[in-house]
Formats: sequence, structure tokens, C-alpha cells
Amino acid sequence: MHRYEESEPKHSRIEYRMDFKDQYGKWKEEIDNRLGNLVEDREPRSLYEPVEHILAGEGKRIRAVLLLLSCKAVGGSIDKALEAALSVEILHNFTLVHDDIMDKAATRRGRQTVHTKWDEGTAILVGDVMIGLAQQLLLKNAGGNCAAAIDAFSRGIIDVCEGQALDREFEQRNDVTTEEYLYMIAMKTGRLVEMAAEIGGLIGGGKPEHINALRAYARKLGLAFQIQDDLLDLIADEKQLGKEIGRDIIEGKRTYLVVQGIELVAEGKDRELLEQLLSGPGLPANQVEVARTMFQKCGILDKARQEVERYCVDALKDLEILPDSEARTMLKWFSEMLMRREN
Amino acid sequence: MHRYEESEPKHSRIEYRMDFKDQYGKWKEEIDNRLGNLVEDREPRSLYEPVEHILAGEGKRIRAVLLLLSCKAVGGSIDKALEAALSVEILHNFTLVHDDIMDKAATRRGRQTVHTKWDEGTAILVGDVMIGLAQQLLLKNAGGNCAAAIDAFSRGIIDVCEGQALDREFEQRNDVTTEEYLYMIAMKTGRLVEMAAEIGGLIGGGKPEHINALRAYARKLGLAFQIQDDLLDLIADEKQLGKEIGRDIIEGKRTYLVVQGIELVAEGKDRELLEQLLSGPGLPANQVEVARTMFQKCGILDKARQEVERYCVDALKDLEILPDSEARTMLKWFSEMLMRREN
Repeated sequence: MHRYEESEPKHSRIEYRMDFKDQYGKWKEEIDNRLGNLVEDREPRSLYEPVEHILAGEGKRIRAVLLLLSCKAVGGSIDKALEAALSVEILHNFTLVHDDIMDKAATRRGRQTVHTKWDEGTAILVGDVMIGLAQQLLLKNAGGNCAAAIDAFSRGIIDVCEGQALDREFEQRNDVTTEEYLYMIAMKTGRLVEMAAEIGGLIGGGKPEHINALRAYARKLGLAFQIQDDLLDLIADEKQLGKEIGRDIIEGKRTYLVVQGIELVAEGKDRELLEQLLSGPGLPANQVEVARTMFQKCGILDKARQEVERYCVDALKDLEILPDSEARTMLKWFSEMLMRREN
Repeated sequence: MHRYEESEPKHSRIEYRMDFKDQYGKWKEEIDNRLGNLVEDREPRSLYEPVEHILAGEGKRIRAVLLLLSCKAVGGSIDKALEAALSVEILHNFTLVHDDIMDKAATRRGRQTVHTKWDEGTAILVGDVMIGLAQQLLLKNAGGNCAAAIDAFSRGIIDVCEGQALDREFEQRNDVTTEEYLYMIAMKTGRLVEMAAEIGGLIGGGKPEHINALRAYARKLGLAFQIQDDLLDLIADEKQLGKEIGRDIIEGKRTYLVVQGIELVAEGKDRELLEQLLSGPGLPANQVEVARTMFQKCGILDKARQEVERYCVDALKDLEILPDSEARTMLKWFSEMLMRREN
């Protein structure tokens, strides 16, 4: 399966993974640098300073790297996809700025959110202008695929808004099913990941079946990523995670663990705990450990781990129809790396 | 100048204007109908009911009609521009939804604003999804001009955000110059009008010089429209206007009248009144008539009227290089109609 293992047996799989990690680090650095300089000369500063602030927030740059890898995996040149990679990253950050207003989140990745450091009006405008900026960058790389790339981009905006609207609806409901939850995160989290793969494949000049494979891979990666996120909220090391353990529980969020609980935990003290989480503003901080134990005991933590694993394995299968290449191998490494993350 | 007056002398100019008014009414009705049905089948309803609410708000549909006329004026077919016309109208309404949050406006065109009827989070999302919807519609008509049309669209988003950011900066300043004010309204109000003309010209397959002429015309129309708006706040008939006279004065807005006042009214009671307007949350309602008298006495109302007239005359000159056509004549009528409006 791994070309290098077969053709160059002297190199071990681990070494390749180190190479991939270096490669990822270099791309991430390039993306960080370009995002850091993007609006430094633009006026008015009351609009662009907060844009700079949010784009300097770093993050994993998953969508940007996935776009580059998807372009490469269909035989395209990465140089011709860099602006598009910045574009999807900016679009992702637009969703964060607006979501943070709605969630009244004071910090993100250890830094003040835009509406906290400035004000809500500024945060609304900052998110809006980022859509325009993202689109201008995408146009630079879209070339002959303009219509298809912009179609993917605008569908992405619509779907991510629909996902967020559903998430907000769910906060008012105590009977969200796992199926509904998975649909919601496929829209809210999965769609921009899928869009990144689609646009990368389009810019790389990929065949429709290869672009579809990349999209299917990315969609599952997005789902696995979100369930992993929900899991890490309870099982991560607080220092590694960079934020308080159990935040989702304290805020009463409808996570994968909670919707599984709604379906699987029928009665007794466990059900009472769940009802308490669902009924008000969430559980008090001193109940987080109790909740963790409950989810563990009911097999929900294990179920979540299995689902993350299952989506990842399925995602890797989607890649099989792509021509064997270093980029394809790196896409496999990429999904494993994301699922082994601790923050 | 008017083709029909020369070739068909039996028809008077007035009759043609009646035709134009009918034509405008038919287009407006078509646009209203299409916008009214646009999202009726879309889910989730928590997102799309507010979209329906805002799109049912009617309004003058100036940008949509201007796009159709621009397309026709360069020889294009209106049938191929209808979705693009809806697109610019939706993009305009997105700006209204988000501006209304920032301005804490409870009503618009006599109807509750989205953030009042629902909540701020919903209004943020509703504006966001409208950008995606607008873009999807534009793609349907953009054809071979995709890159240019989307470029105009995304520049429009960026500029209108920059204009709004400047407007917000000005609310904190007492020394805004007329030049700064005109730049701000060119971005905040003028740009989407200009964008409508540009996209109409592109879809119609117009030559660059004709598209540039349409843009120049539209830009001036946008400026004249905004100054007229500022003027109507004080001189309109309250019933015709559909809202309280002097609203801008009461809210302490930096309108054309106010920035002219900053430059022209140096001392005495008039200056004191102006300082009062600038220093706090605006003037009390019982001072509106005093302010109107002051602006009248200082020649500022007349200056504003002259500027509206001047921009309109200049805008008409821009149309001269276009081939003579019914659409061009209607564009002339269109600007006159807008400037004679009473609301």
C-alpha cells in the first residue's frame, strides 16, 4: 500500500511519517506567514486590525493543508493552490468569529475573541469582510475552474450556516438523535473540510471520480474530527488541550457523548444527571468527573472512540481509487495524525 | 437625445415616462415574487423563515432593476440576468440585516428587523447565509464571465464592509470632513449600486468602455441617492417618508448635512446646536425643527439639493457613450425618478 515501503525498503514507515510531519510544519508555517501579512496594508484599521488578530490565531490549518494535499494527489501543482488554501482557512475563521459571538465565547485558542477585544458590531463586520477576502484569494487560483470552485465555496457558506442554525436549534431540544447530530456536524464541521478537498481537487485538474473520492474522505475526516473533539473535552490532558476539561458539559452542549446518552441511558441516576445537563445551562464544574464516569460506564466513551476509528478507516478506503503517490500516502498519514491528536 | 422623440414625434416624453414606470413596476413585481419564493422549501426553518421575512420587505429593488437595465443597455438579454438581479438585491439585504444589528434598529420599512423579531445570533446567521444564496444565483447567470462577475461581487462585499467600518469610526469623531464623508458613502452605499451596473454590463457582454460608463453612472447615482436620503430626513413629508422626520438628527448621525455643518458653521448658537448633536446621542426630538431651520439658514439644504442635482447631471453624461437605445433612455429616466422620490 505504501509505495515507499515497497520500492525503497530501507526507509521505515516511521521515517516517512517524520518527513510528513516536517512537510506539514513547513506548509503550516507558510500559511501562517501569509495570513499574518495579508491585510497589514489595508484600511480602515478599525476593520483590519481585528482581521489580523484572528488570522494570527494560528490553529492547525487543517483545511488549508488538506486543500494542498488534494491538489497534489490528483497531479496538480501546490504553487497554484496556495491562495485557495488561504481562502478556505479564512472562510473557516469567518465562521469562528461569528460563532463566537453567538456562543458568547470570551476566548479561543487562549486569545481574546474579536467581539470581546473589540465589540460585537466589529466582529460581525470582520467576519463579513473575511468572506470577501477569501473569495478574492480563491479567484486567483481558480482559473478555468472558476464556476465549479465558486459553486463549492458558496455551497460551503450555505451549508455551514445551516449546520450552525441546527446546532442552535438543538440547544433548545432534549431529544436530539445521533442521526440528527451527525447530520448537523456534517454540515457545521464536515462541509468546509469537504469543500477544501473539492477545491484542491478542482484546482489540481482532477477527474470527477477522484474529486468525489477526496470529498468522501474529507467528509468522514470532518465527522471523525468533531467526534474526537467531543471526546477530548472529557478525556484529554488539560494542559495539552489548552482549555478547561469538561467545558462542553459545563455549557450543556449537545455533543456526540450527550446525544448517545439521550439514546442509551434510559433511567436511574445516570439519566437524572443527563436530564440535569440538558435542562439548564449545563452541569456545575464539580459534576464533570461524575459525568465522565457515567459516560465511561455506559460504554459511550468507547463507542465514540470506535466511531472515530471507523470513520477514519472508511476515509482511508475512499483514497484507494486515487493513483498511488506521495500525496496520497500523506493524506493517510494526515488522518491518522489528526485522530491521534491530544488537542 | 431621445430616440423616440425624434423618430416617433407623436409620442410625448411624458408618455414614455409612463411606460417606463409601468416597466419598472413589472420588473419590481417579478423580483418581489421571485424573492418571495426563493427559500420557501429550504430547511432549517429557524434559518430560512427570517430570510423570507427580510426578502418580503420589498423596498425599491433599485440595484436589481439597474442590473437589468445595464445588461439591456449593452445589448444583452434581460432573461439571462434575472438571477443576477436577485443576487445583488439579496446581497444588499444582507448588509441591511447586519447593519440593523449594529445600529440596534428595531424596525426597517415599517417591519420588525430580524434581530428584533428573532435574536442577534439568528440575524448574524441569516445575513451570512444570504451571501451564499446570492452567490449561487449569480453563478447561474455569470456564464463565461464568472471570474469577472465574482470578482465584482467579492470586491463589493469588501468595500461595503470598509464603508460600514468608516461610518462606525465617524460616529466617534466630531471632525469628519465632507471629502471623508463622500468617500465613506461611495463605499457603503455607492459600491453595491456600482456593482449591480458592472455585473449587468458583464452579463450583457458589454465592451469594457461601456461597462465603465455604466459603473461611473451608477457610482454617482449612489452618491446622489445617499445625499437625497440625508436631505429627506429633514424635508420629507412624514407620511410619505414612512418614518419619523429628523430620525438622523435625533440619533446624532454624521449625514451630509452635518458634515457640511462642521465645515461651514463656525460659531454662535448654530455651532452650539451642532456641537450638541455631535457630542452625545444626538438632539432631542423637539430640536429637530430648530436644526432644520439652522441648516436652511446656513444654505446647507440648498447645497445638498445642488449636489444631488450635480451628481445626477454628471451621471447622465456618463451614459452618452453608450449606444442610443430604449434601455439607455430608461436609465436616464431611472435616475430622475430616484431623485424626485419622496421616500
